[in-house]
Amino acid sequence: MKVGVFGASGYVGGELLRLLLKHPRVEVAAATSNKYAGEFIHRVHPNLRGQTNLKFMKSNPSKVINDCDLLFVATPHGVSSSFIPEIAETGLKIIDASADFRLKDPQDYVKWYGWEHKCPEMLKKAVYGLPELHREKIKNAQLVAGPGCMAATGILALAPIVKSGKIEMNRIVVDFKVGSSGAGGKPTLSSHHPEHYSVVRPYKPVGHRHTAEIEQELSILAGEKVSVAMSAHAVNMVRGILGTCHVFLTDPISVIEVWRLYRNAYRDEPFIRLVRDRKGIFRYPDPKIVVGSNFCDVGFELDEHTNRLVLLSALDNLMKGAAGTAVQDMNIMCGWDEREGLQDSGLHPI
Amino acid sequence: MKVGVFGASGYVGGELLRLLLKHPRVEVAAATSNKYAGEFIHRVHPNLRGQTNLKFMKSNPSKVINDCDLLFVATPHGVSSSFIPEIAETGLKIIDASADFRLKDPQDYVKWYGWEHKCPEMLKKAVYGLPELHREKIKNAQLVAGPGCMAATGILALAPIVKSGKIEMNRIVVDFKVGSSGAGGKPTLSSHHPEHYSVVRPYKPVGHRHTAEIEQELSILAGEKVSVAMSAHAVNMVRGILGTCHVFLTDPISVIEVWRLYRNAYRDEPFIRLVRDRKGIFRYPDPKIVVGSNFCDVGFELDEHTNRLVLLSALDNLMKGAAGTAVQDMNIMCGWDEREGLQDSGLHPI
Amino acid sequence: MKVGVFGASGYVGGELLRLLLKHPRVEVAAATSNKYAGEFIHRVHPNLRGQTNLKFMKSNPSKVINDCDLLFVATPHGVSSSFIPEIAETGLKIIDASADFRLKDPQDYVKWYGWEHKCPEMLKKAVYGLPELHREKIKNAQLVAGPGCMAATGILALAPIVKSGKIEMNRIVVDFKVGSSGAGGKPTLSSHHPEHYSVVRPYKPVGHRHTAEIEQELSILAGEKVSVAMSAHAVNMVRGILGTCHVFLTDPISVIEVWRLYRNAYRDEPFIRLVRDRKGIFRYPDPKIVVGSNFCDVGFELDEHTNRLVLLSALDNLMKGAAGTAVQDMNIMCGWDEREGLQDSGLHPI
Amino acid sequence: MKVGVFGASGYVGGELLRLLLKHPRVEVAAATSNKYAGEFIHRVHPNLRGQTNLKFMKSNPSKVINDCDLLFVATPHGVSSSFIPEIAETGLKIIDASADFRLKDPQDYVKWYGWEHKCPEMLKKAVYGLPELHREKIKNAQLVAGPGCMAATGILALAPIVKSGKIEMNRIVVDFKVGSSGAGGKPTLSSHHPEHYSVVRPYKPVGHRHTAEIEQELSILAGEKVSVAMSAHAVNMVRGILGTCHVFLTDPISVIEVWRLYRNAYRDEPFIRLVRDRKGIFRYPDPKIVVGSNFCDVGFELDEHTNRLVLLSALDNLMKGAAGTAVQDMNIMCGWDEREGLQDSGLHPI
Repeated sequence: MKVGVFGASGYVGGELLRLLLKHPRVEVAAATSNKYAGEFIHRVHPNLRGQTNLKFMKSNPSKVINDCDLLFVATPHGVSSSFIPEIAETGLKIIDASADFRLKDPQDYVKWYGWEHKCPEMLKKAVYGLPELHREKIKNAQLVAGPGCMAATGILALAPIVKSGKIEMNRIVVDFKVGSSGAGGKPTLSSHHPEHYSVVRPYKPVGHRHTAEIEQELSILAGEKVSVAMSAHAVNMVRGILGTCHVFLTDPISVIEVWRLYRNAYRDEPFIRLVRDRKGIFRYPDPKIVVGSNFCDVGFELDEHTNRLVLLSALDNLMKGAAGTAVQDMNIMCGWDEREGLQDSGLHPI
Repeated sequence: MKVGVFGASGYVGGELLRLLLKHPRVEVAAATSNKYAGEFIHRVHPNLRGQTNLKFMKSNPSKVINDCDLLFVATPHGVSSSFIPEIAETGLKIIDASADFRLKDPQDYVKWYGWEHKCPEMLKKAVYGLPELHREKIKNAQLVAGPGCMAATGILALAPIVKSGKIEMNRIVVDFKVGSSGAGGKPTLSSHHPEHYSVVRPYKPVGHRHTAEIEQELSILAGEKVSVAMSAHAVNMVRGILGTCHVFLTDPISVIEVWRLYRNAYRDEPFIRLVRDRKGIFRYPDPKIVVGSNFCDVGFELDEHTNRLVLLSALDNLMKGAAGTAVQDMNIMCGWDEREGLQDSGLHPI
Repeated sequence: MKVGVFGASGYVGGELLRLLLKHPRVEVAAATSNKYAGEFIHRVHPNLRGQTNLKFMKSNPSKVINDCDLLFVATPHGVSSSFIPEIAETGLKIIDASADFRLKDPQDYVKWYGWEHKCPEMLKKAVYGLPELHREKIKNAQLVAGPGCMAATGILALAPIVKSGKIEMNRIVVDFKVGSSGAGGKPTLSSHHPEHYSVVRPYKPVGHRHTAEIEQELSILAGEKVSVAMSAHAVNMVRGILGTCHVFLTDPISVIEVWRLYRNAYRDEPFIRLVRDRKGIFRYPDPKIVVGSNFCDVGFELDEHTNRLVLLSALDNLMKGAAGTAVQDMNIMCGWDEREGLQDSGLHPI
Repeated sequence: MKVGVFGASGYVGGELLRLLLKHPRVEVAAATSNKYAGEFIHRVHPNLRGQTNLKFMKSNPSKVINDCDLLFVATPHGVSSSFIPEIAETGLKIIDASADFRLKDPQDYVKWYGWEHKCPEMLKKAVYGLPELHREKIKNAQLVAGPGCMAATGILALAPIVKSGKIEMNRIVVDFKVGSSGAGGKPTLSSHHPEHYSVVRPYKPVGHRHTAEIEQELSILAGEKVSVAMSAHAVNMVRGILGTCHVFLTDPISVIEVWRLYRNAYRDEPFIRLVRDRKGIFRYPDPKIVVGSNFCDVGFELDEHTNRLVLLSALDNLMKGAAGTAVQDMNIMCGWDEREGLQDSGLHPI
């Protein structure tokens, strides 16, 4: 099958190319980048040197439509909603890794993103592409919206306990620690190495956009309005997110019961690993361990002292947090083994 | 004045030596280390090469008593309570940077540290050495217990808002991000560079000992029992702690009112800086900025969406989190300018 | 085919397991570690969680012989020469990633390692396992000695120019920058994160053992005694080596001629990439780009000002510098496609 | 004494401000930055929050002349030669940290920098501001040109052995490893944290401009033309440079003789420390140890195997490599104790 990547020069685009070039069932027919059109791909993604002779091409939707059977979109937020409607009319399957089709309520774009959505009628058709929650819908979707990287991290940690109803739904604190690749490939003062090395920078202590996604998805699971108190910190690493979710219990719960909830939820999930060990130094999820893999590691600890449950989740923001999940969605949409092209373990040490 | 440092080969001991060697009013008369007795100090603390010809000596309390007017203690937790009573009888002033005299209730040592305190009667005499809370008592104390590094970070962020009574006292979440020097100078698998680089390791998601100190001090301020839901994460840096404190408001409060509370509390504090900027990349506290200095930067953000106040504080765990506060305590105990020997700014970039 | 890994709990052992578990033609039948016998493999190599249920077993050569068709050895230097002779008698194929069979002259072990070799007669039978130099011999070897990580880096950069004879053979300076995983998995003060972060530590400015290998292999190519002035520095990363080789020209040479020499040498090599770009930020080899891959990137620059040629090479010390080359050797010994199980590109950014 | 800093918003400018604000004999009367004119200094140099209320002002030479007794210049290379002649006419003392007055031969600016010097007649008047070589001239200089950071590192390592005449003067290899602050405060793709983390990037394997300075100064010492084969690598740290200098001996020399040469050269130097230890983990110079200090640590090792002497030097590029030496020059020019304001030790660990 022929696939194309729109916006292929960014970090998510590069990761999509890395995965798709070695995927046994697809061929990359187009990789667009207006900035780098005509350049070899390895100029921008040096890890792909020797893996392909493909060059970037201009972002020409009609040409891409003709060449491809499925399209990945990795353009900046706010861009894809202007060209996806046209592409969608052709029936082409689309997986959009940007934020443009994640939220169901058009008003949420005004509130969280500050712009009016250009094609609000398409929001209902789009499926939120987190396989662990919406696998059945993804199977038949034409347009899948890949989750935000922090949103995926938070939702996967919280889904089972929120669904259980055993926690205070308006006292959920989610504290994220994020690598620098999450801010994208464009140099800024904040990402300048001398300014970013050794930081713990609370760059978005309140008001982060991914709050909207997390609340949207958790509210469906809870059957009531869930509110999430989210904060995001930049730390000194490149890939990876750790989400620390602090929730307060309404009913007492035991460690065994939490285990059971999570095992039941994720038993058959190929990319969720439950991590809670009594020995060794990696007792809980840690992004270091999942770099380059499509795993989301989930763990927890009970704090009887404060009647709190701490849920921990770690993933690679470019993999399970973006390109990996997008490829997983493609596998589901095409009826293939969901794990195809995604079976690399992480590296250790790294 | 002659001072001695007990346990001078650890990281806190080394930082005490660095500060005391350049302090205009003291002379370092003794630096003990059983492990390195007879070695030049710069063998262990290479930054002090050329700053002193002092050598480590055996930990001989009676000799140190004769040579010194004031004693700093930086031994591992659980050690100083076995020799401080003997020293205290001589009337020598003591500043203990370890945990042995921080808690008032002997039962808290059993609960949080797992051992019976060896001289519980001395706990009442010891003053908790956080100048911002106990300056007057420190002035006349014989035995000062330096605060834990995370405890200081959390307390300084929370004290004004807790004292105001405007928050839920049993839904306080404190999420710490800590550099590797916080775990001390002894190599372990967990601190092995290949295993620690790029981590976000939730090494103590619940049950951290500093919880006891934070609750003790905040409960005094609140006039009621405060409970703190604390989690600690190791990140890829050496010095520094960021505390992110998530609290939920019982009464509405404005940004201006929060500013006022914090300005009133810290206006005259030489080492607290309020950081909340609308421009630039360092809008909130960040440990990167305070490395090597005695500052604790404190900032905040209001989250109307969840009725939450996020309080942020950053300090250098070896400075304001240990040795710096210990020297500040000495300055207070001796009636000197509190800032003497502690006026270095941080380095930027670093 | 069934393979075993002797000394599987170290970093090279872990990387061998990662590669072998996904290799399409082999099954890991045994992974030995006396220290961790009985433990699940993911306790030590957390990236392999969910990839295998194998446990470490005691290092029992006779049992391993029965279970396996080919044996990888990743024990510390000086260990394998005591048990390999016994195993070799059974005819089992062996790939030893340690130093014990790399040098041809038994006296070199005395000079560079400080011990008498236990079975000097086997040194001649062992093949130095760098495919780019000894592919034909590896095909039929029973015992292959995997090159040292820095040795491989240096030899691959220098081989074509040394073979050309156009440089001063006794003024070759090789300056290595090495990640922390190169020193192995055992915590030491030098590898303690607070002591290793941000270092550029010249830990072996002269006298590094890999000098012997580099000189042995280059002397063969040159047809004369080559001497190498090697220095090794530890830097703040986990995986990877950059070798900067400064050589002085005896005859003038043009950029085009250097290109030709290297292209001719490496044209058909699946894991050597020539990197010398006029644009972008990755114009020369950089270990960052090859982490997790089996590539060795080689580049160069001519310095007319000093009549110098600078040769640059980068590889992942655990991959092309150890486990990757070992698997490549296995592929050659077994007559398989040399690239099997080794085709991952690096990750970018990382 | 009143001093001004021209170009105060860059990293060297910020470091000058940090040093000058705490210097006991000077007052900072002006800090210029066209980009940030009107902004508080701590917006750009967040470490200086609370240390000064000074704001940046426009770069108005005539105003600065009236306000100041001595001027530091930290503008980008090629800028100061256009305004310093005008300032110099007033008799004001000037310390220029940029490259504009370092080289004596105007042709060297054409060769190494690619531009014609605007006031070649002033090059002779300017003194190369490395106190260890030109202290006497600096005392009476009006215009001092601060050395380049790598140049200072290389010269201080090589000066005594070059002066001794015991080495091959055209086979000197200097291999630098440099932190990211060396490239300045302006974000670029190459300095983008995701692209710079974990690199060992040979960004200038040949042709680096500092070669000219090193050759100029060493040739004076040698009394003959010295040529230097220099290569520069970026590594994953912010501050610091390690220079590894590989030289080949023409006469045999013993360790004791090298010690004697270096001790004689640097015995009375307040900021040179000889570092060559038989124990511990910091046996040789390492930039990690000198961060924030004005020390240049120099060490060495003899390699009898290749008849090579390896000289190692480490300094903080913003301190001894720029601002620290500039302040040291001021102290000398003003007849003050050379160490004033520069006595901080480094931090450990950091």
